[in-house]
Amino acid sequence: MMNIAIAGLGTVGAETARQLIHQHETISARIDGGLTITAVSARNADRDRGFPMDGIAFNQNPVDLASRVDVDLVVELIGGEDGPALDLIEAALANGKSVVTANKALLAKHGARLAAIAEANEVYLAGEASVAGGIPALKILREGLAANRVSRISGILNGTCNYILSTMEATGRDFDDVLGEAQELGYAEADPSFDVDGIDAAHKLALLAAIGFGQTPDFGSIDIAGIRSVSAIDISAAEQMGYAIRLLAIAEKHGDSVISTVQPTLVPLSSSLAKVDGPLNAVEIEGEPLGSVISIGPGAGAGATTSAVLADIIDVVTGRAAPFFGQAATALVAPSVTGDSNGVQSAYYLRLTVVDRPGVLAEITTVLSAHKASVDSMIQQGHGDDETAPVEIVLTTHVVKSSAMTAAIEEIMGLDVVLETPTAMVIAASS
Amino acid sequence: MMNIAIAGLGTVGAETARQLIHQHETISARIDGGLTITAVSARNADRDRGFPMDGIAFNQNPVDLASRVDVDLVVELIGGEDGPALDLIEAALANGKSVVTANKALLAKHGARLAAIAEANEVYLAGEASVAGGIPALKILREGLAANRVSRISGILNGTCNYILSTMEATGRDFDDVLGEAQELGYAEADPSFDVDGIDAAHKLALLAAIGFGQTPDFGSIDIAGIRSVSAIDISAAEQMGYAIRLLAIAEKHGDSVISTVQPTLVPLSSSLAKVDGPLNAVEIEGEPLGSVISIGPGAGAGATTSAVLADIIDVVTGRAAPFFGQAATALVAPSVTGDSNGVQSAYYLRLTVVDRPGVLAEITTVLSAHKASVDSMIQQGHGDDETAPVEIVLTTHVVKSSAMTAAIEEIMGLDVVLETPTAMVIAASS
Repeated sequence: MMNIAIAGLGTVGAETARQLIHQHETISARIDGGLTITAVSARNADRDRGFPMDGIAFNQNPVDLASRVDVDLVVELIGGEDGPALDLIEAALANGKSVVTANKALLAKHGARLAAIAEANEVYLAGEASVAGGIPALKILREGLAANRVSRISGILNGTCNYILSTMEATGRDFDDVLGEAQELGYAEADPSFDVDGIDAAHKLALLAAIGFGQTPDFGSIDIAGIRSVSAIDISAAEQMGYAIRLLAIAEKHGDSVISTVQPTLVPLSSSLAKVDGPLNAVEIEGEPLGSVISIGPGAGAGATTSAVLADIIDVVTGRAAPFFGQAATALVAPSVTGDSNGVQSAYYLRLTVVDRPGVLAEITTVLSAHKASVDSMIQQGHGDDETAPVEIVLTTHVVKSSAMTAAIEEIMGLDVVLETPTAMVIAASS
Repeated sequence: MMNIAIAGLGTVGAETARQLIHQHETISARIDGGLTITAVSARNADRDRGFPMDGIAFNQNPVDLASRVDVDLVVELIGGEDGPALDLIEAALANGKSVVTANKALLAKHGARLAAIAEANEVYLAGEASVAGGIPALKILREGLAANRVSRISGILNGTCNYILSTMEATGRDFDDVLGEAQELGYAEADPSFDVDGIDAAHKLALLAAIGFGQTPDFGSIDIAGIRSVSAIDISAAEQMGYAIRLLAIAEKHGDSVISTVQPTLVPLSSSLAKVDGPLNAVEIEGEPLGSVISIGPGAGAGATTSAVLADIIDVVTGRAAPFFGQAATALVAPSVTGDSNGVQSAYYLRLTVVDRPGVLAEITTVLSAHKASVDSMIQQGHGDDETAPVEIVLTTHVVKSSAMTAAIEEIMGLDVVLETPTAMVIAASS
């Protein structure tokens, strides 16, 4: 019999408790012995959360769960990359208790150290719910594709951004408008910056890359751009050119280095990724000898997250959980410095707000071609009745080195005729 | 140190050996201790298979591998649902050796009994490569979604059929023509019946359903239709109506029963399944509290299959392999009898070859509406210059009970104006 404590009884914590109690039969079919919830921790002891609290010890301070003798496994659902969540996990592991968590920010920052503590104490640290919600992405990568030499991991890892982008696409509305609605519907936080600025997706990418490439999580080296700069004009221009815009997280092997980016990216309308709508997530893993596998499913929400938390609990209770990173945390290598990303190249989407006068386009294409970026297609948006108003030029380039593109954009920004900071996005190679 | 024997050195067996030997570093990062190939079995001892045979014992008779003291784990890649493959696996498990196999036909027929032998002898039986090639479908269902109450498992499980159907779609060519080409390219066997008649997909579905619904594999109860009857006309008519045709395997819970079918099915062109082209496979799992997850990847080929075989080997060597069915084989329940599938209903596609004279359509729609099948859309193919030639009527119905549709088709076949057995296919509900 395994005794479980749940720290945090928000949406996911309460649903986890309800499933463990009300669906005991389904879950116990998968385990020998059984499991029981012996203790919980939450802000409010008295709220009705849809499961009976009789016989379950209530703890005001979550960290107290780590020292209870009637607890074998702590489920951490408090959140926050430091503070009580970290104190609880560290103390629990040190006291020989396994930990299941959904906390990507904490794992991205402290995961290698915490996994080493778990392994030294011969207990488990599991975090399937921290990445891609209900998609068992960590298990697929770490165990299902364990023997592959991974070359690329990519995905749509933030459901809020994907909801916003696909709603902008479906309705033609602008970012701020759709964000406001997402906040009202509970799809986005009051402070949306973790999501819309790409931080959350980058935390998840850091964990996937660590497992796939056998290196310590390296959030700091990820080149992150969020979706605030994506306008309704970009969405419709991209669509005219045959693309949808998605916030893609990509970690890719270039020689000995791994280059990781989170950025709004144009994907072909015919691709699987363009079909990933609303709060769905997607994770694609490419390697040898496999080829590639893509999984698509709900990236957030109580049901999807609880599914992942419960799977971890079953793995821990049956003694079948893998080491968090698929190998000993102490065996992870330091991430190799990415240098100047000199080998990275892609096609680009560029939107420029310019003065409407003859010769402007020639000035811009001259700069681009000086940096070996040749134009593939172009759309010019008119200025309506006001002939003195600026116009928008949208163009795509053929594949060019990213360093060259950065230099070209810098030079374009210096032109008198260019009125605003250009919007530049990578175009994903069609696979 | 775990000692491994490989029975069968065809494409997958030889690739497995090469990966174990040449990629030893990647694989041993995931395990403690290590592993080594000590014995193999094949028809021909002398062929060069791209790996050194020094120190590896060659056995003419695969069953001899089961009694070697220098073997802990037998990898069965001979094939065949009985015969030497079965003898080898039974003997190995009984002798306390774990078994990894890619043999779906054997597992669908003998899996419950073999898993029970493995569990009684405290060794592992693993078969990830038996279903959906490189997609870790069994692991996703059994472990990643372990706590879900599964309601539906569906998929494209046969790469040969999917190659044929998607090539017919892309080229407008007919079944026999594309099958012949697939045989030349090595995508289809000389005797293609296991693939094109749906048997292979049904074996895989039986295993997925057994894991998902906790019942013994029940190949015999699956309603199987292959793709031989799908014509170029069907593919183009379906496309005009907004659908692609795929061989779908579906196991679905209806009350206490599980109803399983393998049949060519119309899927909306905008769906993920319609984008699954060539030899790709797809597996979608729906359940509570998750929602649903779909995974798409290579369904066959040496690389994909070897990826799955190696993942099983790593799980066995690290002692983390789950019971084959996710729970004790002895705890599986007998499949509940599906009865008359009375609750099953769907929309239908119907192609009729009829005499071209006034009133024919009225006769047919009268029969359909007598069985409560109302017509949704219709295409009539002309007869060209010859006015006495038969014409093809293609129609789709709204959702109707499958028993009613069967009765309607029977009655339609009795009409004088209907010249050939109608082609009927289910239309998948858009999700």
